[in-house]
Amino acid sequence: MVTNRSKRPRLPKLPALDPTGVPAIKGSSAYPPPFRAKVAGRIKQRLGDALGLRNFGVNLTRLEPGAWSALRHWHTRQDEFIYIVSGEATLVTDRSRQVLTAGMIAGFPAGRADGHHLINRSKRDVVYLEVGDRMPGDEAAYPDDDLFLKDKAGARSFVHKTGKPW
Amino acid sequence: MVTNRSKRPRLPKLPALDPTGVPAIKGSSAYPPPFRAKVAGRIKQRLGDALGLRNFGVNLTRLEPGAWSALRHWHTRQDEFIYIVSGEATLVTDRSRQVLTAGMIAGFPAGRADGHHLINRSKRDVVYLEVGDRMPGDEAAYPDDDLFLKDKAGARSFVHKTGKPW
Repeated sequence: MVTNRSKRPRLPKLPALDPTGVPAIKGSSAYPPPFRAKVAGRIKQRLGDALGLRNFGVNLTRLEPGAWSALRHWHTRQDEFIYIVSGEATLVTDRSRQVLTAGMIAGFPAGRADGHHLINRSKRDVVYLEVGDRMPGDEAAYPDDDLFLKDKAGARSFVHKTGKPW
Repeated sequence: MVTNRSKRPRLPKLPALDPTGVPAIKGSSAYPPPFRAKVAGRIKQRLGDALGLRNFGVNLTRLEPGAWSALRHWHTRQDEFIYIVSGEATLVTDRSRQVLTAGMIAGFPAGRADGHHLINRSKRDVVYLEVGDRMPGDEAAYPDDDLFLKDKAGARSFVHKTGKPW
């Protein structure tokens, strides 16, 4: 009997992985409830965690049409990097709005006070890689919303712009 | 007169970039001379630096047929992440040798004493993204070679396994 076994693609083993098997997290349970609808069509796979990495996070993220990557924000200590894998994302910053296609990159240095996010204004999914380090004491500002991500001795929580907890 | 201007793809502006314009560095001038031939067909573009990021490095790296990503090594404090963009790379570790294709990932947590590198054993170029943080005090061990990357108060240099400088 002839089997087809040798023609199946072999799945890689750690320290390599096929991202297909990494759990997908849809939407956000971290934002205060009024802000969650914007990211309801965002699906993240935490690749770095799946590989045992700790110093930085790497996510493979898919945005359905209409979904946002995040509320527009900037970080005080964390650097962020984006690589578009497929589809088209609109990058929104203080002064610009530009469409990024497969192979394009973007970077947001820590402390640069220019709020940014990606929006999927196209009719099909966009997929991108995002990398962010885990500098202690990182906080995030949200210029368009009554929101601030506050760090207190390593514990982060969302507060209003007045400092009152959400 | 009709011009074609509107049909040209628009190049992104910072904080986004088209990696095509980022300078390419061929081979290594960092390894001691006897080790440089293995990476002569390696072309790196330092994307993270081009975007102004400091907490971690992101390179878009191309290996010509036969080229190595690096001598087989592991880091004491740095986490490393790999994402295959196109082509096929052979990942070599202590116990395995496996072919990674586009979309596959690999990760090498700091301090895990399993030397790794990628080799291009195919007939066409392989392109991958590599991310590594910049933890102070990081050193690297090279199990197959008379080489160690030593850190002394933030200055790193290659030494023999005896500790004698190269």
